[in-house]
Amino acid sequence: MELAALLTSAGINISLCILFLSLYSILRKQPHNFGVYFGRRLAEAKFRDQVDYFSFERLLPTAGWIVKAYWCTEEEIRRVAGLDSVVFLRLFIFSIRIFSITTFICVFIVLPVNYHGQEMSHTHIPEESLNVYTIANLKEGSPKLWVHCVALYIITIAACILLYQEYKYLSRKRLAHITGSTPNPGHFAVLVRSIPKSGNELLDDTIRNFFVNYHGASYLSHQMIYRKGKLQKFVDNAERAYRKFVRVKLSVFDQNVRSSLNRCGLCGVRASSFQLYRNKFVDAKKSDLTDPEVVEAQKDCPGAIVFFKTRYAAIVASQVLQSSNPMLWVTNAAPEPRDVYWSNLWIPYRQIWLRKIATLSGSVFFMFVFIVPVAFVQSMMQLDQLKRMFPHLKGTLKTSFCVRVITGYLPSVVLLLSLYTVPPLMMRFSSIEGSISRSGRKTSACTKILFFNIWNVFFVNVLSGSVLNQLNVLTRPKDMPSMLAELVPKQATFFITYVLTSGWASLCSEILQVYNLVYNFFRRCIFGYLDEPGYVYSFPYHTEVPKVLLFNLLGFTFSIMAPLILPFLLVYFCLGYLVYRNQILNVYYPKYEMGGKLWPIMHNTMVFSLVLTQIIALGVFTIKNSPVATGFTILLLIGTILFNEYCRQRFARIFNSFSAQDLIELDREDEQSGRMREIHEHLLDAYCQSPPGSGGADDEVPIEMILEDPAQEASNSSQELCDTVQEVAGSIQDHIEEK
Amino acid sequence: MELAALLTSAGINISLCILFLSLYSILRKQPHNFGVYFGRRLAEAKFRDQVDYFSFERLLPTAGWIVKAYWCTEEEIRRVAGLDSVVFLRLFIFSIRIFSITTFICVFIVLPVNYHGQEMSHTHIPEESLNVYTIANLKEGSPKLWVHCVALYIITIAACILLYQEYKYLSRKRLAHITGSTPNPGHFAVLVRSIPKSGNELLDDTIRNFFVNYHGASYLSHQMIYRKGKLQKFVDNAERAYRKFVRVKLSVFDQNVRSSLNRCGLCGVRASSFQLYRNKFVDAKKSDLTDPEVVEAQKDCPGAIVFFKTRYAAIVASQVLQSSNPMLWVTNAAPEPRDVYWSNLWIPYRQIWLRKIATLSGSVFFMFVFIVPVAFVQSMMQLDQLKRMFPHLKGTLKTSFCVRVITGYLPSVVLLLSLYTVPPLMMRFSSIEGSISRSGRKTSACTKILFFNIWNVFFVNVLSGSVLNQLNVLTRPKDMPSMLAELVPKQATFFITYVLTSGWASLCSEILQVYNLVYNFFRRCIFGYLDEPGYVYSFPYHTEVPKVLLFNLLGFTFSIMAPLILPFLLVYFCLGYLVYRNQILNVYYPKYEMGGKLWPIMHNTMVFSLVLTQIIALGVFTIKNSPVATGFTILLLIGTILFNEYCRQRFARIFNSFSAQDLIELDREDEQSGRMREIHEHLLDAYCQSPPGSGGADDEVPIEMILEDPAQEASNSSQELCDTVQEVAGSIQDHIEEK
Repeated sequence: MELAALLTSAGINISLCILFLSLYSILRKQPHNFGVYFGRRLAEAKFRDQVDYFSFERLLPTAGWIVKAYWCTEEEIRRVAGLDSVVFLRLFIFSIRIFSITTFICVFIVLPVNYHGQEMSHTHIPEESLNVYTIANLKEGSPKLWVHCVALYIITIAACILLYQEYKYLSRKRLAHITGSTPNPGHFAVLVRSIPKSGNELLDDTIRNFFVNYHGASYLSHQMIYRKGKLQKFVDNAERAYRKFVRVKLSVFDQNVRSSLNRCGLCGVRASSFQLYRNKFVDAKKSDLTDPEVVEAQKDCPGAIVFFKTRYAAIVASQVLQSSNPMLWVTNAAPEPRDVYWSNLWIPYRQIWLRKIATLSGSVFFMFVFIVPVAFVQSMMQLDQLKRMFPHLKGTLKTSFCVRVITGYLPSVVLLLSLYTVPPLMMRFSSIEGSISRSGRKTSACTKILFFNIWNVFFVNVLSGSVLNQLNVLTRPKDMPSMLAELVPKQATFFITYVLTSGWASLCSEILQVYNLVYNFFRRCIFGYLDEPGYVYSFPYHTEVPKVLLFNLLGFTFSIMAPLILPFLLVYFCLGYLVYRNQILNVYYPKYEMGGKLWPIMHNTMVFSLVLTQIIALGVFTIKNSPVATGFTILLLIGTILFNEYCRQRFARIFNSFSAQDLIELDREDEQSGRMREIHEHLLDAYCQSPPGSGGADDEVPIEMILEDPAQEASNSSQELCDTVQEVAGSIQDHIEEK
Repeated sequence: MELAALLTSAGINISLCILFLSLYSILRKQPHNFGVYFGRRLAEAKFRDQVDYFSFERLLPTAGWIVKAYWCTEEEIRRVAGLDSVVFLRLFIFSIRIFSITTFICVFIVLPVNYHGQEMSHTHIPEESLNVYTIANLKEGSPKLWVHCVALYIITIAACILLYQEYKYLSRKRLAHITGSTPNPGHFAVLVRSIPKSGNELLDDTIRNFFVNYHGASYLSHQMIYRKGKLQKFVDNAERAYRKFVRVKLSVFDQNVRSSLNRCGLCGVRASSFQLYRNKFVDAKKSDLTDPEVVEAQKDCPGAIVFFKTRYAAIVASQVLQSSNPMLWVTNAAPEPRDVYWSNLWIPYRQIWLRKIATLSGSVFFMFVFIVPVAFVQSMMQLDQLKRMFPHLKGTLKTSFCVRVITGYLPSVVLLLSLYTVPPLMMRFSSIEGSISRSGRKTSACTKILFFNIWNVFFVNVLSGSVLNQLNVLTRPKDMPSMLAELVPKQATFFITYVLTSGWASLCSEILQVYNLVYNFFRRCIFGYLDEPGYVYSFPYHTEVPKVLLFNLLGFTFSIMAPLILPFLLVYFCLGYLVYRNQILNVYYPKYEMGGKLWPIMHNTMVFSLVLTQIIALGVFTIKNSPVATGFTILLLIGTILFNEYCRQRFARIFNSFSAQDLIELDREDEQSGRMREIHEHLLDAYCQSPPGSGGADDEVPIEMILEDPAQEASNSSQELCDTVQEVAGSIQDHIEEK
């Protein structure tokens, strides 16, 4: 590809970006779009009292939102959107910092060196192949390779220093978050699974006896988790009928009731009359061991949530092996109530390891199947192949603009579209895996998508561009560095356009919320509903984090090979920082807290990117015959690995666990202030179990449904939504007729 | 190699074996060898009252020891030699069982199938190449491959069932061992390292304050670990002088005092007057914070042993993260007193991770350097190459007997001799690694030697026998199965002789204790000492376990490829079972208990062997064009991996940790029987720290020195021993002169 084709692609994208951003600044001012653009604020019911007045200003694009997003403090973001948002935004800050340094060094020092690598007279710049800007332009044994080696050193050292600072900063933030936040019932609870059944004792008593016996001083109470049995089915039906009734009532008569339902802050509906009724019902039934229904319900109980008097006792019980058979009395720290993934709690514990292996193999299989569309995308880059595949396009392909669009822009659009199928599938895999919490499921999906992206977007694209069959490459790990070194610079143009299309364009589509906008439009204008849509989304970390990390990987690996990609990336990170700040502040509503657990994943990926960059550099220096530079790069590689190991030793456990010191201090504070009694009372009704098969806590919060990911969960729940909508419509009509 | 050459080798080894065993049965009856052959019994002072009468029977070889070794019950072995010996002997029982089945199937079914694979007229059997007995003799696409596939299924399933039974049996044994044994101070103690220093507080107070604050209910006391400072040096010197005095006194006047010194059973010398003096001295000195010596001693303190009132409290403190900085207040379960590796406790905790990485890279480097001698061994197998290397040997090489000896016997002797350098080196690596316990060091060395053996004895020998450069193979993992399938049968003859020389011969050398015999002979006959040698060895698990596991690996991988190896292996396992039983009962004295932690290593290696066998079989079936058999083998492979994962889930944690249930029950029992008070009193002087630089607890037990490995540690301590011997000799003379 020539520079001109690249500029065409950049031009298209820049104009699209400006168009979308302007569109956004207009659309957000229209009151009927408030549901789309201010979901979080609506959920917090702060935004409702704005009057729907019309002004001309509403039709003018403005940049006010950028200013608002920029001037918000980190502490404010943490308060309204949780620690995870802070971690996500710190990733952008880190990226902006490191790529400012990298761009400066590579564009002003490395790029000219590459350009003047061969002693050739340069043609007119716009028509020059982009390869002259890459390291491929250097001669073998050139002394100029020293520049690259030094640049690599500077980038790595700067990245390590910044990474260390971020890790330190975020681990401090996490500690402050734990100690500073309101008491979390999850800290007092332990999830016990795989409870041994005894024939002559109720399961309820078995649990009580065990914990009173071995943790008598700290055991408070417990709550059984019931699986769908006959008994449960009846309860479920009643519950569902009740909920339907509540929903209809709420949506028609009293919209304000929503906030009062949320007031408890722990789990949505607290101690509603129905809950009490159900508990009594269950209590009355289950005490009779001769009743076959009770026996069946007992058989189906996959576990219990056990509450302790102090946080420290709970963490001790969750970490120490309970029984001499490790498959019995399995304890885990319980997730916070809104984070529990109920439908997975019903999975028998002995299945979990099998499920993990199965989903792992499933994801790996899918990763390899996905090579097919990627290879197709790559074949589009080769014009000759394209002509052979679609002979009737020959005429069109002669126009130079069309050629530019097809080779420069279309491939990454195709890739982007096919990549949209990945997150729902990986999320499904993570659900099957058996994670007990929604945050655990999201983290697991995030890791899977990350692996997928790095493998399928980076490696397969780099390797399949060559004549070599990509599967053969896998079987020769030793040749990998030199092969990558040869292929990476060649694929620079593809990845530059990928940054433009996947990066910039996805930011635009993110801020415009295209899917919700269209849905909202149809809902209002076609079906004629005037109320706000009854849901807000939680932030899709599992799709966004891998995306940003992939761009980091691209930035690092191409930095000294093909520095032309860096300015585009830097723009992406700056724009992304503003866009995501805005979205976090206005659109998404945090349904649960991951406690910053994503940072270790980000850190490790960043170190992996650095190591990969160094390995590719090793290959380059070997190809270009520069043994001294190779030696220095090996030193750097060892240093980077040691740095990562040190960070793991120093910080990783902070993100996995809580320290005895902190928990005991917290317990003491609560004890002394007399709050402990109140916390204990709250605990007992903090966890309200939603019925099985309904996909978790969705039904717990009647109106604000948690939709994990627009594209994915919308499809799951659209049927349910339609039903509800019809019901609501019906009840409105009934109501009107009654009046 | 022909069958005749193999039989020559077997003949040499069988006669050597019979010779050595007869020699052993004679030598063991000579009273002056009791120190060599009955070290454990001498150490327990049960054997001393035998009278030195002469009878003709003493010069006749008898088999009484075999009967005695065989009829000893497992419970008795556990009582006298610890759980580890039981685990080690169970490995032999497992091997005998599985290889009885395998030998039966492979020799009577698979071997004839291989032999009649090609439709050829067989020549005279003794002169036939051994290749006709291997799977290489089968034609491509032969339907007879089904026999191999079925045999593989039977072997794998039998092995899995037996492995599962052993794991279950041993985990029950381990639980019984923990609950049944005498109270172990290690269960009440936690090793705390990386204690933060504060300027205005004594370290002693810092530790006390921290544990009283956060574990006040269960904290009992603590004991600082001091590093060699000026203060310590003086104490050390005094201590050493005292010990020398005691040693001289003991060895000359009162040999029976030894047993009284051992009476406490926890640590050798208990509350001797010197110990009290020293403690008082240290107490008096350290309370003054202005004293520069005290400050220095404080600076050098790398940690402390903290005692808790109950076992449960100790395990909780060791498993829960203590401080919000994971690099401070690092807690580990303390090893039992005799198991503590003192000199490693002085390593600052922040070095440990670096040391681990360094030793890991060191071991890997050594593994690859060792390819040189192995390649040399393999070149000896090729007669032509040998003739080229040593032209003047041509005459000798014409004799057929010499050829047989050189190709059939010498290579594995060379390999065996060079392998002798490995255990000391790996043990050194494991010491540097920073393990806090002697058992941890031994386990780590065991794993390293195991990897080393599998890589250098199995893989390098198999791969370097071919024309291919072995390092190239590493870079193409995909071709590995078919390459192994092609090469393994060819190396069958080498490994049969390896079993004969390394296996059988090492058993003979083990039972004869050649090194100790010679040392004892010189000591008695040349230097004229009449008393027993002042040390017993602890069992060298780190050399013996990898050896036995390697033979298991050979047995599995060659089972269906070249079944001729199996009878030799079966004889090895049967003989080994008797020999090691005898050695464990008579020679070795267990200095510390690993608690059966070696079994998970053994289990995993066994599963690895099975998987490797299946991978090689996959290669064979691919080469021989049998896709259905390939498919079935893949199924078997998946099944084996799932089996291993299940075992890991079910049993692995039992061997790593103790369960709350067991510990609390134990605590309660002791509490109720009133023994707890006594245990607490014992605790405070259970850990006596040996001075730094002397290599650990050796000096704690003045007479019975713990020598880990004859070949290795003897060289370390020989100088010290000589000094002691001279001193003792001097003092005897003085004593006689006085009289």
